[in-house]
Amino acid sequence: MTRWEPNARGRLELAALELYGERGYDQTTVAEIAKRAGLTERTFFRHFADKREVLFYGAGMLQDWLVKGIEDAPAALPPIDAIGASLEAVAGQLEERREMATRRMVIVTATPELQERELIKLANLSAALAGALRGRGVADPGASLAAEAGVAVFRVAFQRWVGKDGGNRNGEQTLAQLIRDSLAELKSVTAGK
Amino acid sequence: MTRWEPNARGRLELAALELYGERGYDQTTVAEIAKRAGLTERTFFRHFADKREVLFYGAGMLQDWLVKGIEDAPAALPPIDAIGASLEAVAGQLEERREMATRRMVIVTATPELQERELIKLANLSAALAGALRGRGVADPGASLAAEAGVAVFRVAFQRWVGKDGGNRNGEQTLAQLIRDSLAELKSVTAGK
Repeated sequence: MTRWEPNARGRLELAALELYGERGYDQTTVAEIAKRAGLTERTFFRHFADKREVLFYGAGMLQDWLVKGIEDAPAALPPIDAIGASLEAVAGQLEERREMATRRMVIVTATPELQERELIKLANLSAALAGALRGRGVADPGASLAAEAGVAVFRVAFQRWVGKDGGNRNGEQTLAQLIRDSLAELKSVTAGK
Repeated sequence: MTRWEPNARGRLELAALELYGERGYDQTTVAEIAKRAGLTERTFFRHFADKREVLFYGAGMLQDWLVKGIEDAPAALPPIDAIGASLEAVAGQLEERREMATRRMVIVTATPELQERELIKLANLSAALAGALRGRGVADPGASLAAEAGVAVFRVAFQRWVGKDGGNRNGEQTLAQLIRDSLAELKSVTAGK
């Protein structure tokens, strides 16, 4: 019989991020994460395949939401604006996770293995967004280019949101606002001559 | 005393690409590459640090050329066109390497370790191009966004050039032309509403 542990996933995630930040990712064990969360290792493995998945389980959800958002965007929207609408909608789901996202970013940036995983995640995301655009009738290479540009907008906005560039320390700018700004900036720099 | 081996680097590269294609990257040793090229292992290690570097030494050169191209682009060019001018200029250096590039792409695509390395290479390239744009007075996030978009243009054009999407089997389109097309397409899909 499985004991009911209120918000076990959230407690495990917070414990993991704390420990990765304090000791480093490589030096942290699943046993330590479970102990910090006041849960058993068995409970950990009911929620996550391994200690890396704590940092990446959100990526799959994010991808599903963004694809859905592109599929649901009004048919008249140009490709980049269909992505923009989807990114903004998803931003709303992330706003309250800013502190967790900031901790996560520090850990990923400090660990080459995790940085590689992050790049793979973003490449997969780009491929999925391109697929969703093709589903809207956007031909390649346009679909791939718009998807890559959309991922760039998200990545840049996300980094500004978590304050990686030194701004937004107190979260005064929402992710949705930063996505709108980044998209406008992208349009400006790609307008060319 | 070092024996003079005419075009040892080129012979080693071709031998490595042949063997990676025939046996798989993981199953090929440096000894086999040297033997196929009719050279010694010692000669191999005078040219490459390991068997992976055969596939990635060009990336460093490419990055240096592209950064230089952005620095040298006319000051009046908008960011994305400064990148476009640099990409086109560099394309000229690559045109005759199409067959090698095609072999390389097949091997990298088939090997997860190499795909990861490729993603890291592209991320580094993007960071370098953003730095070159900042050197032209382009502020962030515009510099980062234009650089990411420029790398996307290059990647998409390169994949079409080597025929990964099934087209350009006989190399009838030059890389320079495909870069111009991709850049035009990027401008079109990011124009938005």
